[in-house]
Amino acid sequence: MPILVMKFGGTSVATLDRIRRAAKRVGVEVAKGYDVIVIVSAMSGETNKLVGYVNETSPLFDAREYDAVVSSGENVTAGLMALTLQEMDVPARSWQGWQVPVKTTDAHASARIEEIPTDNINAKFGEGMKVAVVAGFQGISPEGRITTLGRGGSDTTAVAFAAAFGAERCDIYTDVDGVYTTDPRVCEKARKLDKIAFEEMLELASLGAKVLQTRSVELAMRYKVKLRVLSSFEEQSDEAGTLVCDEEDIMESNVVAGVAHSRDEAKMTLVSVADRPGIAAAIFGPLAEASVNVDMIIQNISEDGRTDMTFSCPTDQVARAQKAIDGIKESGALNFSHLDIDEAVAKVSIVGIGMRSHAGVASKMFKVLSDEGINIKVITTSEIKVSVLVERKYMELAVQALHDAFELEKA
Amino acid sequence: MPILVMKFGGTSVATLDRIRRAAKRVGVEVAKGYDVIVIVSAMSGETNKLVGYVNETSPLFDAREYDAVVSSGENVTAGLMALTLQEMDVPARSWQGWQVPVKTTDAHASARIEEIPTDNINAKFGEGMKVAVVAGFQGISPEGRITTLGRGGSDTTAVAFAAAFGAERCDIYTDVDGVYTTDPRVCEKARKLDKIAFEEMLELASLGAKVLQTRSVELAMRYKVKLRVLSSFEEQSDEAGTLVCDEEDIMESNVVAGVAHSRDEAKMTLVSVADRPGIAAAIFGPLAEASVNVDMIIQNISEDGRTDMTFSCPTDQVARAQKAIDGIKESGALNFSHLDIDEAVAKVSIVGIGMRSHAGVASKMFKVLSDEGINIKVITTSEIKVSVLVERKYMELAVQALHDAFELEKA
Repeated sequence: MPILVMKFGGTSVATLDRIRRAAKRVGVEVAKGYDVIVIVSAMSGETNKLVGYVNETSPLFDAREYDAVVSSGENVTAGLMALTLQEMDVPARSWQGWQVPVKTTDAHASARIEEIPTDNINAKFGEGMKVAVVAGFQGISPEGRITTLGRGGSDTTAVAFAAAFGAERCDIYTDVDGVYTTDPRVCEKARKLDKIAFEEMLELASLGAKVLQTRSVELAMRYKVKLRVLSSFEEQSDEAGTLVCDEEDIMESNVVAGVAHSRDEAKMTLVSVADRPGIAAAIFGPLAEASVNVDMIIQNISEDGRTDMTFSCPTDQVARAQKAIDGIKESGALNFSHLDIDEAVAKVSIVGIGMRSHAGVASKMFKVLSDEGINIKVITTSEIKVSVLVERKYMELAVQALHDAFELEKA
Repeated sequence: MPILVMKFGGTSVATLDRIRRAAKRVGVEVAKGYDVIVIVSAMSGETNKLVGYVNETSPLFDAREYDAVVSSGENVTAGLMALTLQEMDVPARSWQGWQVPVKTTDAHASARIEEIPTDNINAKFGEGMKVAVVAGFQGISPEGRITTLGRGGSDTTAVAFAAAFGAERCDIYTDVDGVYTTDPRVCEKARKLDKIAFEEMLELASLGAKVLQTRSVELAMRYKVKLRVLSSFEEQSDEAGTLVCDEEDIMESNVVAGVAHSRDEAKMTLVSVADRPGIAAAIFGPLAEASVNVDMIIQNISEDGRTDMTFSCPTDQVARAQKAIDGIKESGALNFSHLDIDEAVAKVSIVGIGMRSHAGVASKMFKVLSDEGINIKVITTSEIKVSVLVERKYMELAVQALHDAFELEKA
C-alpha cells in the first residue's frame, strides 16, 4: 500500500469534535487505499500550559524534566485520535515517541531526529492496521529519556516519518488553508500560493512565517518529501492548499514569492569595541552558550581602531543576552564603551528564487520603504532574500507597501 | 542509606504551590538521611478530565488507548516535582513507569504489577541522587504498551516500590490526616486512629473508605510494608497520621475499629429462579464477563424448586448488569420470573479484628439499626466485619448510631 503522512496541528485537534473532523479526513485517505501515518500535536493551549508550569516551577529548568513534562500533551491526542478512528471502524493504534522509537540526539528541548525504525509500524500495517497515530514533537535520547524537538516540532516529526517510510506525500493540516504571499492579518491583499519552492519556504519559515517549522522544510528539501500545507477546517480536494516542492516543479513564479515579518525583534549594539581579530568570537561564543538566538550581525566600519558591533535577537532573549555580555565585559575579554538596546524593532523580508536572476530587487525594496518614510536600521541579504530591521510601528506599513510594489496579489 | 517511599495524592499536588509544599516535606526526610522514592498522582482533576475525554470519544473504548491517554497526568506531576526539588538543591530526577520499568500484566486499565527492577534507580542513588520521583498509577505491559493500575493505583505503586526497595516505611500523603473510625463528613464524632491492623484497613478500604486503594493494603500486608497515612496539609511529626501495621503491633484495640459506608449501591433480585445446580455460575459468570463488580450475593431458601437470587453492585453498573442478565435469559441458560432492581440502597459495615473473639457483635449491630427503625435488606458477614444494605436515606443515621453504640469516639 502507498503510505501517506498526515499531520494535524494543535488547533486541528483542539476539541473532541475537531479530532473527529480530522479523523474523517484520515478516513477519506484510507478509503482511497493509503496506509496512513497520522502525526498529532497537543490540543491547542496544552503545551503552553505545561511550559508555563515548568517556567513557574524552575526558571532555569533541567531540560530533561522539561521534556518529560511538555511531551505529555501529544500522548493524550494520539490516544484520543486512535480511539476516534476505531469508533469509525478504521483499524488504528497510537504510538508514543519512545515506542516507535523515534531516536533523537540528547539535546533536550531541541533534539534532532537521528533514526526512525520502520519495522514496528510496518508490521502492524501488514496485520491489517490502516492508521498509525504517532505523538509528534517527541523522541527518546540514547540514554532512554524523553526528548522534544522544539516548538513546532511536530512538523519535523511528520516530515521525518514521510522520509523514513517513503511516503507519497506529507500533508500538514493546520488552521490556514496554505502558504500566503504574506500574513493575511497584516495585508488583506495576501494571496494563497498553489506552489512554493523548498528554498523559498525555508526562508519564509525562518523569517517568521509560522506555517511550518523551519527544520521540517530543511528535512523535506533534503529527502525530497512532497509537503502540502492545507486547512483542516475546509472540505479538501487533491489540489487544495499549497504544495512545497522542488523549484523545477514550479512552471512560473514571481521574482518575489512572499513578504515575511517578525514582530518581536531587538537590536543590540556594542558601541566602540576595540577592533582586533577574535572579537566576534569573544562576543558570539558566550551568547551562543547562553542560548541566545542571534539573527543578524553587522559590524560597522572601523574608525581609530574601534568599531560598533550590532546584532539582533528575539526580544524575550534580551535579558539573557545582556547578562552574557556583562559577563564578557567583567571577564576582561572585551573592551567596549556601552551596550545600546533597541527593543522596538521588527524584521521585514522579501523572499524569492527569482531574485537570483533579477537585478535591482533589493534597491527596489529600499526605495519602496524610503518612499513610505520608513528608516532602515539594519540590512542583511542572501541569494534569495533581503531582510531589514525597521521601527516596529512601521512593520505593517512596510509589509503592505512591499506586497503592493512587487505585485504579489497577482498570480 | 535507608530508603523511604513517600506518595502524594492528587489533592497534595493539585497546584504548583502544593507541589512545593510536598517537596519541602521530601526535603525534611532527605535531611534526616533517607534516600527517598516519591510516587506522585496526577494533579487533582486531571485524570477525571482525561477519562471524560476517552468516554466521550469512545464509550466502549480500547483499554490500551485509554491507558495511553489517562497515564499522562502523572508524567506531568513527576517532572514538575523533580524540578521543584532541584530548585531546592535536592538532587532529583523523574521516571515514568516504562522507564523504571514497572512491569505489569497486560490487563489494561486494571493491570497488576509483576516486577519492579531496582537497578536503574539504585544506580542513581549510588551517584548521589537523593530523590527518585516516579509517576504513579502506570506501568508497561509485556508487549511494551502503557498500562494503568485502576483508580487509586498510585497507592499500589507506592507500596510496590516500598516492597521492592525494602523501604523502611511507605508514607501516603493525602488530604486527610489519617484513617478515621468513620467518615467525619457523615459522623462528627469520628476519631482518628493512631494505628490500625492491615486486615481492618483492608476491610475498610474495600468497604468504601477511600483513604487507600484496597490492593495497596493487600500488598502491604503480604510484604509487611509499614504503611502510614497522613496529611500533606499539616506540619508533621514522626508520629503523625495513622500507621497501618501488623495486628501484633497494636497493644489494645476496640472490638469494632470502624464503621464504613458505601452510598451508591444497587440491589438486584432475580425472582423465582429455577433452583438447580449451576445456576449461580450461569448468573455470575456472564456478570463477571460484563465487568460487573458483584459485591454481596444472597440466595433465599428454595420453595417448590424455585428460589430468589439477590446480589448488589455499584449503581453505575446496573445497566451493564441488566444487559448481561437479559442476555442470559434470551440464551435460555436461565429461567426466572423477573428482575427486581432497587437502586436506592447503601451499604453500612462495621469492621474490627476484635470480633473474632467477641460474640454478639453482629446481633448488637442489628438491634441498634432496629431501634432506629432502619430495615435491613441484605446481610453479609466475614470473620472481622458485618455489612448490611439499608435504604440510602438511612445511611447517615445508621453510621452515626453504630458509631455511638460501639463507642468509637473513645480510644
